[in-house]
Amino acid sequence: MESLDYCDPGFTPLVVLELTSETKEEAIGWLLRRIRDLQQNGGAELLVEQLGPGVGAQEKENPNMFLVGASQQRLLSGAEDVGLFKECSDGSMRAFTCTNKHKFKDFKGDGDSFLSMAECQYIIKHELDTLRARDETHVPGYTEVKLYPGKSIIRRLQSKGILIQLFPLHEKEELKRLSFSWYKKVKLSFQPLDDIRHYYGEGQAFYFGFLEYFTFALVPMALIGVPYYLFDWEGYDKYVVFAMFNLIWCTVILELWKRYSASLAYHWGTLSRKKAFEEPRPGFHGVLGFNPVTGREEPIYPNAKRQLRIYLVSVPFVLLCLYLSLYVMMIYFQMEAWALSVHDDEPTFWAGILIFIPSIIYAVVIEIMNLIYRYAAEFLTEWENHRLESSYQNHLVLKVLVFNFFNCFASLFYIAFVMQDMVLLRQSLATLLITSQILNQFMEACLPYWLQRRRNKKMINRVRKRRTLEDKELPLVEQVRLEADMSMYLGTFDDYLEQFLLFGYVSLFSCVYPLAAVLVVLNNFTEVYSDAFKMCRVFKRPFSDPAANIGVWQLAFEAMSVIAVVTNFALIGISPQVKAYFSDSETQLILWTVAIEHVLLAFKFLLAFLIPDIPKHIQIRLSRLEFESLEALKKKVEQSFGGQGSTWSP
Amino acid sequence: MESLDYCDPGFTPLVVLELTSETKEEAIGWLLRRIRDLQQNGGAELLVEQLGPGVGAQEKENPNMFLVGASQQRLLSGAEDVGLFKECSDGSMRAFTCTNKHKFKDFKGDGDSFLSMAECQYIIKHELDTLRARDETHVPGYTEVKLYPGKSIIRRLQSKGILIQLFPLHEKEELKRLSFSWYKKVKLSFQPLDDIRHYYGEGQAFYFGFLEYFTFALVPMALIGVPYYLFDWEGYDKYVVFAMFNLIWCTVILELWKRYSASLAYHWGTLSRKKAFEEPRPGFHGVLGFNPVTGREEPIYPNAKRQLRIYLVSVPFVLLCLYLSLYVMMIYFQMEAWALSVHDDEPTFWAGILIFIPSIIYAVVIEIMNLIYRYAAEFLTEWENHRLESSYQNHLVLKVLVFNFFNCFASLFYIAFVMQDMVLLRQSLATLLITSQILNQFMEACLPYWLQRRRNKKMINRVRKRRTLEDKELPLVEQVRLEADMSMYLGTFDDYLEQFLLFGYVSLFSCVYPLAAVLVVLNNFTEVYSDAFKMCRVFKRPFSDPAANIGVWQLAFEAMSVIAVVTNFALIGISPQVKAYFSDSETQLILWTVAIEHVLLAFKFLLAFLIPDIPKHIQIRLSRLEFESLEALKKKVEQSFGGQGSTWSP
Repeated sequence: MESLDYCDPGFTPLVVLELTSETKEEAIGWLLRRIRDLQQNGGAELLVEQLGPGVGAQEKENPNMFLVGASQQRLLSGAEDVGLFKECSDGSMRAFTCTNKHKFKDFKGDGDSFLSMAECQYIIKHELDTLRARDETHVPGYTEVKLYPGKSIIRRLQSKGILIQLFPLHEKEELKRLSFSWYKKVKLSFQPLDDIRHYYGEGQAFYFGFLEYFTFALVPMALIGVPYYLFDWEGYDKYVVFAMFNLIWCTVILELWKRYSASLAYHWGTLSRKKAFEEPRPGFHGVLGFNPVTGREEPIYPNAKRQLRIYLVSVPFVLLCLYLSLYVMMIYFQMEAWALSVHDDEPTFWAGILIFIPSIIYAVVIEIMNLIYRYAAEFLTEWENHRLESSYQNHLVLKVLVFNFFNCFASLFYIAFVMQDMVLLRQSLATLLITSQILNQFMEACLPYWLQRRRNKKMINRVRKRRTLEDKELPLVEQVRLEADMSMYLGTFDDYLEQFLLFGYVSLFSCVYPLAAVLVVLNNFTEVYSDAFKMCRVFKRPFSDPAANIGVWQLAFEAMSVIAVVTNFALIGISPQVKAYFSDSETQLILWTVAIEHVLLAFKFLLAFLIPDIPKHIQIRLSRLEFESLEALKKKVEQSFGGQGSTWSP
Repeated sequence: MESLDYCDPGFTPLVVLELTSETKEEAIGWLLRRIRDLQQNGGAELLVEQLGPGVGAQEKENPNMFLVGASQQRLLSGAEDVGLFKECSDGSMRAFTCTNKHKFKDFKGDGDSFLSMAECQYIIKHELDTLRARDETHVPGYTEVKLYPGKSIIRRLQSKGILIQLFPLHEKEELKRLSFSWYKKVKLSFQPLDDIRHYYGEGQAFYFGFLEYFTFALVPMALIGVPYYLFDWEGYDKYVVFAMFNLIWCTVILELWKRYSASLAYHWGTLSRKKAFEEPRPGFHGVLGFNPVTGREEPIYPNAKRQLRIYLVSVPFVLLCLYLSLYVMMIYFQMEAWALSVHDDEPTFWAGILIFIPSIIYAVVIEIMNLIYRYAAEFLTEWENHRLESSYQNHLVLKVLVFNFFNCFASLFYIAFVMQDMVLLRQSLATLLITSQILNQFMEACLPYWLQRRRNKKMINRVRKRRTLEDKELPLVEQVRLEADMSMYLGTFDDYLEQFLLFGYVSLFSCVYPLAAVLVVLNNFTEVYSDAFKMCRVFKRPFSDPAANIGVWQLAFEAMSVIAVVTNFALIGISPQVKAYFSDSETQLILWTVAIEHVLLAFKFLLAFLIPDIPKHIQIRLSRLEFESLEALKKKVEQSFGGQGSTWSP
């Protein structure tokens, strides 16, 4: 059997590669040969072993599962390829190079524990992704799966469905330690962000860092909100004070997050890391041509065509969905009016409950519409045929964001500004917030956990039939098969989206319902635990993603904070207390509101401009690196260190 | 005499260095030695020669003038030091290096004409600036002029007043050619931007490029404005159409300028050029410490102290000046009212003229106040003790901008929104615009030209007394002394400021006075000529300044365009035509105006976001360079080309 060829005692399986069970033998042989081939022959020079049959060994088990690993030497040279930044003995962060490996902080002996497992897995993924076709015109055994020189083999197999999945393995021991320090401790403490990053990579760690930061940032808001709610503080001055606080708070926390995130990114080595040239995403198709940047052959799809698809199909579709959402909202208001009239006619206990029914139904419908729209948006964005994954993500985020924002907040805006009914606004806000929180927690964590638990038990039982297990620990083969069946983690998109909507509830309407912040803080405390739990127990381990910030979400949150300023001032303008103050002239009232709003918006932009995005001490370290590289260039030092703009000072 | 030591026939004087006439001999000797010393001994390795006495040889002639030049070899290695980007034979722009010099487009033989004179002068300035003290503790002969290892000698001499000036020489022939193609041709054509950049450097070329671009961008505005003015088009719809056009126009021209400017910068090699580490500006003082970035000894001034100076002194001073300006404005309105009352009592011809007098006086007073404030702002910004020239410039620009904006536009805002007198607004706008244009042209070009002409004639007459001159050409010695007496060109600050204010007049109030754009276009056509003329004939040649864009002015113009949107909508809101349309409810009118304004502001930001800042073809070339450097890094090519992130593909 092929799996025995590489039965090296030093082989640590890192990544699992699963092909369809019908894959032709010659294709498998060719792929394994290419993966194992030396780099100078155009191979990836990785170790790969077939996974043996499970204990159950039923027919439905897929035999085409392969474990991929690599020698320590290969991993280190891979770390150089991907431009990994690591900490040096002098405390600065520099791009790793094999020649200068001994200058790095934790490099001992052969560097066995220098790279974390997540880093090794990322390196293997990168090496597999950049395994390119040479003179093959098609995948052996599949004449229809065309290849051309320079095409990434893995991406082609993926887009043709021959490669089902490629995922990194969990580390049982590491995961236990992590989950213990993360969510199993009862005492209130900060999350182990460095450990999360160590295990899951920077993208995940940034999400949890943001979640924690955002929750703590909400605490003052919640503390101020409580007396406002309890003592029913209303009045011109109090409203303005609360709205002003809200405004400055929004701006300041987002700016401070930017600084905090830069510190984290520096500390994790992703801040000045250069991005490798982005490959086309697997689903991208087009006529074969030459990339003007790389000169390599790759599919070309005219930008004009994509723009046409975006503006003639996607935009009208989004507008149609917005219209539909508006329609559903109107139905909700009719239901609401009907329930109220029933209650007014016959104020029984059941009629009292009936009042809340339309809001709850509406909240559920909103969630369902968001879910359906999400699939449509993914389909449309896929169809727009974006060349880069980042461009695909941006278009998807924009589509989903606009609809979700509209869907969640349209009814509130309608109640606030058209109906001008503050009591109903407060009540709707509370119902929407609480219902969506409960639904989310259930959909996000409980349901997948329950499914996973059932699957887990089934596997353990199946194994038990054959042999006795100590400690309920599964052997490697079963563990791999179990993980292969786990749900795929779809990235931080939904988690950020949820936080974005919560941020919206707090910043848009908190001056009407000051308790919103308290609810969000409570939600987020459980959210940390449920998200941590689902990462550790429910999903396949995701590949780490070397992010330097939270990306497009920073922009989304900033846009929301601008909308919040406008909304808050409009709310103040229509509040009865303020109206009473300007009772003689409504024009004066509006003019003053608008004028102050403009001044504050200008102030907000000024504040965002004045607060530097990167903390001074990080800025100094970055400048020092740059200065050193400039100096070295001047002195034309031959033995340049790192090469990527970072040079070792003598 | 020292001047004879270096009487090399190949010596081309490039830069003039003037010390005070009382400079001690030992200091001069030391300085010249340090300039001539080899680089490995820490010198600048430049050629320097004393300027001989003029024909007049009066006592008041300063003997301590020195001509600085360099060998071709030294200039080329200096070009590498400053990181000059030049065009390669394959059309791309790369950092020049001596090893790969033959791969550059215009490099022939020894590279005699490879560097332009402006580039050579910039290199010499850079080499002089980075001539650093070694173990000297003070300048010889001056125990009070302290030095410490690593201190720039030239900057210390400059800040202590021993070095009076350092300026590059004009090239007579080149200048004649340039001025002929620039402003002596009668036919209407584009400015020779490449030649301007070749002679004056990128900073100047960008100003003239912007001036030309802005003028042409105003033409459609002017063309649309004429029928509005002639046929007195007023009314709800026409106002809105014009304001909408104005809004989109402002945004689009600024975005397109960014793209155009990126093309220019790429073409001129400054777009991806890395800035050298910024030295402290000559006037910067503080306690000696260690720079955290370079590790070099240099003065350290605590940032907190600077912030205190800014917020406790500068900001209150600016506010006081704004208050004063407001006070003067009120006096103007009283004068205006008095003149009107005189005219109403006795409507004679002289009383008719009297009506315009207050506006003209006010326009003159505004110019004078701007001038005085300018000096105060320079003094204050100097006193704030900024470490970097760029930070000094930003703070100065901000101070001057705020005051000038307020001073020029406060009265117009007052007339528009407090008095709501559109006829007076139109009249004031016209008077202000025309008066300030006439004053500016006079102060900027005519007066300095006349002064310079007198000085020029004097020198020619003085020389004529001794010998006969052919062609009115002065010999080198006299030419240098003449240029040393010319006024110093103070940078593009005032020119940009003037354009900024003109942009303000057009964008803020053009919907009331559509002819404003026509006036500005007319002004700018003459402005191009007068600015070109003054650059060529009136001022000392400035050192070229390798700018990649118009810097802080882009931001200033963008801020103005946002203010313009708000102002235009407010003007529409208070126009009688619109008021008549919403005659039943003023509240409705204001709410609609505000709502549309918000939507348009959002649209404006979206537009600015959607238009990419760098044109696609430039973006592709930049990515190609980056990709090549990444690829080379991967292949660990030893013979990296350029090193500064740009690598030669094999």
